Amino acid sequence: MPATPFSCSFLVLQPRFNHYINPIFRSLTYQLSSSPFQSNVRLHCALSQAAEAESPTGGRSGALSPGPTVTGEVQKIDVNPPKGTRDFPPEDMRLRNWLFNNFKEVSRLYGFEEIDFPVLESEALFTRKAGEEIKDQLYCFEDRGNRRVALRPELTPSLARLVIQKGKSISLPLKWFTVGQCWRYERMTRGRRREHYQWNMDIIGVPGVMAEAELISSIVTLFKRIGITESDVGFKVSSRKVLQEVLKCYSIPDNMFGKVCVIIDKIEKIPVDEIKKELNAVGLSQEAIEELLLVLSVKSLTELEERLGGSGEAIADLKQLFSLAEKFGYSKWLQFDASVVRGLAYYTGIVFEGFDREGKLRAICGGGRYDHLFSTFGADDIPACGFGFGDAVIVELLREKGLLPELSLQVDNIVCALDEELQGYAAMAANILREKGQSVDLVLESKPLKWVFKRAARTNAERLVLVGNSEWQRGVVGVKVLSTGEQYEVKLDDLK
Amino acid sequence: MPATPFSCSFLVLQPRFNHYINPIFRSLTYQLSSSPFQSNVRLHCALSQAAEAESPTGGRSGALSPGPTVTGEVQKIDVNPPKGTRDFPPEDMRLRNWLFNNFKEVSRLYGFEEIDFPVLESEALFTRKAGEEIKDQLYCFEDRGNRRVALRPELTPSLARLVIQKGKSISLPLKWFTVGQCWRYERMTRGRRREHYQWNMDIIGVPGVMAEAELISSIVTLFKRIGITESDVGFKVSSRKVLQEVLKCYSIPDNMFGKVCVIIDKIEKIPVDEIKKELNAVGLSQEAIEELLLVLSVKSLTELEERLGGSGEAIADLKQLFSLAEKFGYSKWLQFDASVVRGLAYYTGIVFEGFDREGKLRAICGGGRYDHLFSTFGADDIPACGFGFGDAVIVELLREKGLLPELSLQVDNIVCALDEELQGYAAMAANILREKGQSVDLVLESKPLKWVFKRAARTNAERLVLVGNSEWQRGVVGVKVLSTGEQYEVKLDDLK
Repeated sequence: MPATPFSCSFLVLQPRFNHYINPIFRSLTYQLSSSPFQSNVRLHCALSQAAEAESPTGGRSGALSPGPTVTGEVQKIDVNPPKGTRDFPPEDMRLRNWLFNNFKEVSRLYGFEEIDFPVLESEALFTRKAGEEIKDQLYCFEDRGNRRVALRPELTPSLARLVIQKGKSISLPLKWFTVGQCWRYERMTRGRRREHYQWNMDIIGVPGVMAEAELISSIVTLFKRIGITESDVGFKVSSRKVLQEVLKCYSIPDNMFGKVCVIIDKIEKIPVDEIKKELNAVGLSQEAIEELLLVLSVKSLTELEERLGGSGEAIADLKQLFSLAEKFGYSKWLQFDASVVRGLAYYTGIVFEGFDREGKLRAICGGGRYDHLFSTFGADDIPACGFGFGDAVIVELLREKGLLPELSLQVDNIVCALDEELQGYAAMAANILREKGQSVDLVLESKPLKWVFKRAARTNAERLVLVGNSEWQRGVVGVKVLSTGEQYEVKLDDLK
Repeated sequence: MPATPFSCSFLVLQPRFNHYINPIFRSLTYQLSSSPFQSNVRLHCALSQAAEAESPTGGRSGALSPGPTVTGEVQKIDVNPPKGTRDFPPEDMRLRNWLFNNFKEVSRLYGFEEIDFPVLESEALFTRKAGEEIKDQLYCFEDRGNRRVALRPELTPSLARLVIQKGKSISLPLKWFTVGQCWRYERMTRGRRREHYQWNMDIIGVPGVMAEAELISSIVTLFKRIGITESDVGFKVSSRKVLQEVLKCYSIPDNMFGKVCVIIDKIEKIPVDEIKKELNAVGLSQEAIEELLLVLSVKSLTELEERLGGSGEAIADLKQLFSLAEKFGYSKWLQFDASVVRGLAYYTGIVFEGFDREGKLRAICGGGRYDHLFSTFGADDIPACGFGFGDAVIVELLREKGLLPELSLQVDNIVCALDEELQGYAAMAANILREKGQSVDLVLESKPLKWVFKRAARTNAERLVLVGNSEWQRGVVGVKVLSTGEQYEVKLDDLK
């Protein structure tokens, strides 16, 4: 792997990604402890444990002979997924599906169409965007054809690429959403993860603030669906045009804009003196820096208007957004905060982030307007805005609030033959039920009824269907409703 | 990237993957031509096209000023996804979702639980299994921590890893499914793709053939759901134990088994003389080779029984499977074919593959029993079987049979304000509908009604909801049912 001659902060690349910085390492629900810092204790499940795993002792096990092993040699594998990544065993997958289904249902309610892109992209797609500083945490490598590729750190550049590729064939505005895995490479010093999933919604082709208002509305809808209220979370909102107006006063050239925003975004993470030093290093005067920092500390729109004057786009956009928020019904969720800049270099207008009101967690989601991203890719600009919403911080918040849903496996039927010769008939009964949309856990071995009941309890089966010899002769099977204990016989044809 | 000192065929690694070999390059539905060979003609959409893309000219566009660009420099990007990978624009995503939802619904009907693993795994997970020859087409690289990692070529090793990790905490049998993206790296000489999605179902802990019968039943159910019949496809079935019994006769050591199977799997792809040479090279005598090839040409179970004798497990397993197929109701889909071996080294018993009866396509799916995979990973063995079913060949088949579903965007409502000041009220109306589960495409700009109707046609909106000033004063909105032209007014509260 060649040395990477890039030296920029992660934050340049992926502010949408910055909930990563939260030391959350555990998988969604499967964890050893409730402390976020203990969560990177891995399940160093000794292989000997697996050796003791329940051994199948079905009726046919006698037929098994110790056949040839696949290779002559045996090597113990690391049973954990690669550092910083997660497995999704059923219990975690249920939670992931629940969350993703909420993302997808909200997107559907807002009339958005689902899209996807390769998790592997050309590295240039991510290094180009933010200028010279970019790749500190890009999960990049060279493929066998000597191409520089990267596991995507975020989804927006791929979206822009696809929009440009589609060209004239699309009608604006586009309303697109995606739920995809994103990657970053970072030293695993604080139990941070190297992958997460992110829900993105983007509106391409709408220049006005109605688009941002609609996006924030969809996030509010998501929060409400999963039980999160305005007393749990809020949105901090500002506009990059505030900075732009200040920079203009000091005749800072346009091409410094992204760089300055990226530096300023670090304001709550590194000492102010460091920020000043960095701003000075890119050419801002002491005076300009002081004015910038002053403006960033403004916490009300009225005060901002006094400072900037009422004629600029920053004030007009923000006023309109707060006015729309009233109509949309989420004004209590919104607050102006000039210090919100977001770390991605490409934002140009309104920026916002969702935060927990207790202030314990990193940003839950974030987004904004990026009207000039397309031109950095060599195409004509199209006004656009969007947000990213990760799967990590929201699960933390739900856990803290006791809002994680109870999700368990649930099958409609467990179907079992009373002796081995009847297994084929049990399969027939199972298929009749499945054709009617009923899920069936078919018992595939000859097992005692005690075992079957235990399994039925584990799978939360609603009914037990028993296939016995004399019953089969009469064309019926036995049914037991497991919640009530009710038992009856039913003709095969009437099984439903 | 270090040179890879591995020299084994792709087929050793991933027979479940071998529909890749089909020269299908196009994305699921988005294509320039119906010929599979023209499909790798990329949409070299000139950036100038994008430049001509419909320019948004909403009421607010006057407020836009050419703000600062993100970076000083502009570089044209490649608008195509990396070689051998796909984007999923909305039309392709709808097809993918339709197919995956069928995979998931069938899995649910069979009582399987969904799982997932990282797309990036330790390289050792894939190189270990099949012995010394493995990595020809593994998409592997070294990460910044000097770890050898790979984009997974198949899902089964990760599943085995997770089962071992879970150890005693799981109750057997496990019935697990997953739909995940798999990767391979190959020179792009024939328009082959480097990624595909694969549906896997696995049963862990059942030693008997009922498990294989259940897996094949689930695939048959999938086929039926998507309109594929027994005259379109069938399953070729054999057992690796057939080969095992022949090898035993010639005292071939057990640790040669996987290697021999992998060579034999190539029988329809390379000349028989090559096969003989390779078998000879791993130490088989001419006599053993001739006997192996003779047995592989057997096309009926009766003939096989005459040749091997009736007492072995191979015959017993196969007979039982065909007998169960009668009960399950899919015996017409099944045929014995001794030449089916499958390319993965880890199979030990029944092996099967789904094929199109016209013989035009590669295997649609494939699977089998792998009772000794766990011990190659250093754990105790657990009997297991499973299959992989890719997203490429099945779509080819559906296309050839004219069975691809018509899937289009469909929103319930398009909601539009009659003038700009009413946009907030339109949002209120939209939210009332969304709270009742109705999807709404909210018009976010001030647009002429002609534009709105055009958009409604494109999104297949069922109703147009118009928010006008005088109506709003009266607490009503106008509704037009777009299919019938019916128009009426409705109170906001009664909107549903």
